[in-house]
Amino acid sequence: MSLKVIRQQEFKNFETRKRARFINSLSGFKSANLIGTIDDKKNTNLSIVSSAFHLGADPALMGIIIRPDISPRHTLNNIRSNKICTLNHVNRDIYQKAHQTSARYDKEISEFFACGLSEEYLNSFPAPFVKESLIKMSMELLEEKFIELNGTHMLILAIKDVYLPEEYLKDDGYIDIEKAQTICVSGLDSYHSTNQLERLPYAKP
Amino acid sequence: MSLKVIRQQEFKNFETRKRARFINSLSGFKSANLIGTIDDKKNTNLSIVSSAFHLGADPALMGIIIRPDISPRHTLNNIRSNKICTLNHVNRDIYQKAHQTSARYDKEISEFFACGLSEEYLNSFPAPFVKESLIKMSMELLEEKFIELNGTHMLILAIKDVYLPEEYLKDDGYIDIEKAQTICVSGLDSYHSTNQLERLPYAKP
Repeated sequence: MSLKVIRQQEFKNFETRKRARFINSLSGFKSANLIGTIDDKKNTNLSIVSSAFHLGADPALMGIIIRPDISPRHTLNNIRSNKICTLNHVNRDIYQKAHQTSARYDKEISEFFACGLSEEYLNSFPAPFVKESLIKMSMELLEEKFIELNGTHMLILAIKDVYLPEEYLKDDGYIDIEKAQTICVSGLDSYHSTNQLERLPYAKP
Repeated sequence: MSLKVIRQQEFKNFETRKRARFINSLSGFKSANLIGTIDDKKNTNLSIVSSAFHLGADPALMGIIIRPDISPRHTLNNIRSNKICTLNHVNRDIYQKAHQTSARYDKEISEFFACGLSEEYLNSFPAPFVKESLIKMSMELLEEKFIELNGTHMLILAIKDVYLPEEYLKDDGYIDIEKAQTICVSGLDSYHSTNQLERLPYAKP
């Protein structure tokens, strides 16, 4: 198969939206999560993000990249103010509603209501979970790092309590997120279900 | 469906490997890439990472999280020394060989050779690409951020030249990485192919 090369100078000259689609495709498949937050007036907010990533298991940490000028601005403000949020896996039944949370709603409109997803409060945690999500967790903001190179913000969050259907948690700790119908994203707007190929043993030379 | 809760204190007490599998499952699906590097003696190195993530489209940036005590230590040393690497999508034909690069080989052994993957040099870029990978790019290290909370390193890399089969690049900039058989990872060791559900239009309120 012959390969085409797109030099850096060429994609720099792509029209903005085309460049965003192109570059967003290059890291590979991305996670799809809904972040639930609440402000001090009890207004809730819900945003889809494809930028949540594993940062470490001990302590249990996740990173999320947020561009304040583009996407979930209200989410960022809420997390900064009360240091908490929920993270909820997007699954096959809700990906269209989850995508709709990326629209720019006014601050007083909750995306839960606007997009047809249900708030759920668990174990007295103040931020709302997504009832329709099968794998979800409470999170606490530990640190925010500013990325000077492009003006984005990396939030570093501690994973607190985890909720999931018991049958998907294996004895060895692995969670079968595919059976829970968790989906993934490519580019800016493409949603994908998965088919497990195989779990492989710990590699040795 | 009834949900089980695993409180933070409970998973903190999981045995190390079990906790790693559990926490690594929580962010959702992860990208699967091979990083190709070279040292000043022309020894090459190849490491699978599931920690590469999109950081921004303009400038085109990617982040990679590396834990120096665990995984690709030689990779980290090589990138620090000459500021370059390649990123190569793992596809369905090579995921088993790609997984094998995570074994702890001695520094003088190239994982290309040990794992049966082929070095390829393109447009005079000094670091090796993976010939069997269909979507790949040259990268330049711009910055390294230390994450004090867990002793990991975040590399911020600029995307330089991109190589891909022309037919998978759509007019609007989207790359059909699924058709290129790019796969994704869940947890520490589970590999998945994908089925596109849908591309959704830009969301408006």
